[in-house]
Amino acid sequence: MRVEIWSDIACPWCYIGKARFEKGLAAFAHRDEVEVVHRSFELDPNAGGPSGLPVVRHLADKYGLTPAQAEAAEARVAETAHGEGLGYASGRLMNGSTFALHRLLHHAKRQGPAAHAALLDALYSANFAELLPLGDPETVVSVATGAGLDETEVRRVLADQDAYAEDVRTDEREAAALGATGVPFFVLDRRFGVSGGQPAEVFTQALEQAYAAAGGLVQVGADSGVSGQQHSSDACEDGACEVPAHRREDAS
Amino acid sequence: MRVEIWSDIACPWCYIGKARFEKGLAAFAHRDEVEVVHRSFELDPNAGGPSGLPVVRHLADKYGLTPAQAEAAEARVAETAHGEGLGYASGRLMNGSTFALHRLLHHAKRQGPAAHAALLDALYSANFAELLPLGDPETVVSVATGAGLDETEVRRVLADQDAYAEDVRTDEREAAALGATGVPFFVLDRRFGVSGGQPAEVFTQALEQAYAAAGGLVQVGADSGVSGQQHSSDACEDGACEVPAHRREDAS
Repeated sequence: MRVEIWSDIACPWCYIGKARFEKGLAAFAHRDEVEVVHRSFELDPNAGGPSGLPVVRHLADKYGLTPAQAEAAEARVAETAHGEGLGYASGRLMNGSTFALHRLLHHAKRQGPAAHAALLDALYSANFAELLPLGDPETVVSVATGAGLDETEVRRVLADQDAYAEDVRTDEREAAALGATGVPFFVLDRRFGVSGGQPAEVFTQALEQAYAAAGGLVQVGADSGVSGQQHSSDACEDGACEVPAHRREDAS
Repeated sequence: MRVEIWSDIACPWCYIGKARFEKGLAAFAHRDEVEVVHRSFELDPNAGGPSGLPVVRHLADKYGLTPAQAEAAEARVAETAHGEGLGYASGRLMNGSTFALHRLLHHAKRQGPAAHAALLDALYSANFAELLPLGDPETVVSVATGAGLDETEVRRVLADQDAYAEDVRTDEREAAALGATGVPFFVLDRRFGVSGGQPAEVFTQALEQAYAAAGGLVQVGADSGVSGQQHSSDACEDGACEVPAHRREDAS
């Protein structure tokens, strides 16, 4: 079974949702059969450099809240994060575009699942718990090498705007094709979707539902007699290739 | 959209099926939106070293054919391969276990899609067109470096029986969970399956069917009122995180 998780480093619900998903997964009996793949999504593809604006100010502007209301809303998110055992400090600033972070995550993915997982957690922690300025390349180098990546490689990826850019865009196109408008966006075996950082039990339930449905593939072409022929035997099984019955007769 | 293809290097229908799938994909209007992932499957997980037995002799033993019948059956497969523009020589020997080849394919996958595609094609060609002894590690080193992989890395992977072994086993477990008993086995978005090296038009049809069904995810949890709460707003959209309505009221 395969779970794809689209998220953005700048998204607190992605940070919280990841922890909740992992709890939901831990409670799922067949967790060892689940492959988890994190994919890229930019909340704001048009974000430029870091604006330096406090996040609460941005929230207030966007939703027409008073400063006190925005502070209270952000405090509620922080409380939820703390409830999941996550670090979450107040006073975060807008760090600008996350495109380079996603490119770097794709680079880490090439180094293997452990390298990718380490970088993802390090970036979330840097953004929400440590309030590091992730719009600054030197900060990103420091976080990435702290997560075990090779410094020369990290600098090469950050300096080359095209490095892994197509991988990020492919992820984003696929999210759009699947109907995602926000993140976190969880897709199980391309059949079931969960939107938002929902409680752990919702993820367990989704995993159970997807597991029950798994393997029930709709067969296309098998025994369907395209051009009047039998094609389902054109396969190899059990240590050798089958010799289709009608061919065996031909050969005799 | 995502197509997973389970196959084995030792399987002629996988070799033929790959070419047919690629033709079917080329005829599909939305081919640019398709991600293709090749996965591992061993036809004979218990195969040891190369037996040196001619494949036609193996076929005759397995299916109770006369030597002439087995030769004719293999000639028919060769003819089919030639019909797809593929090299296919007669006289192939049984090369034994393909486990090391699959481990090496996973190593190539880490180097990126182009490296993986080059190695896969090189291995198929070595096995079916050039009749190279792929049970011999030096031959594999030569084929892999010819496909552009780093020789030191290739030798390291081949020498370490554990390198990428778990990746191969994960692929095989997933194939079994999806109901595969033979290869090639094509799975589109984990919803549609095609078994065998079927004609190109079957693949085009399967791609069209999967495309039409894509995006229709069954939503789990959204607005489902777990614990009586509204959770679907715990997500970030459009450049900022939504402040859920009931929280905005709390905050006022």
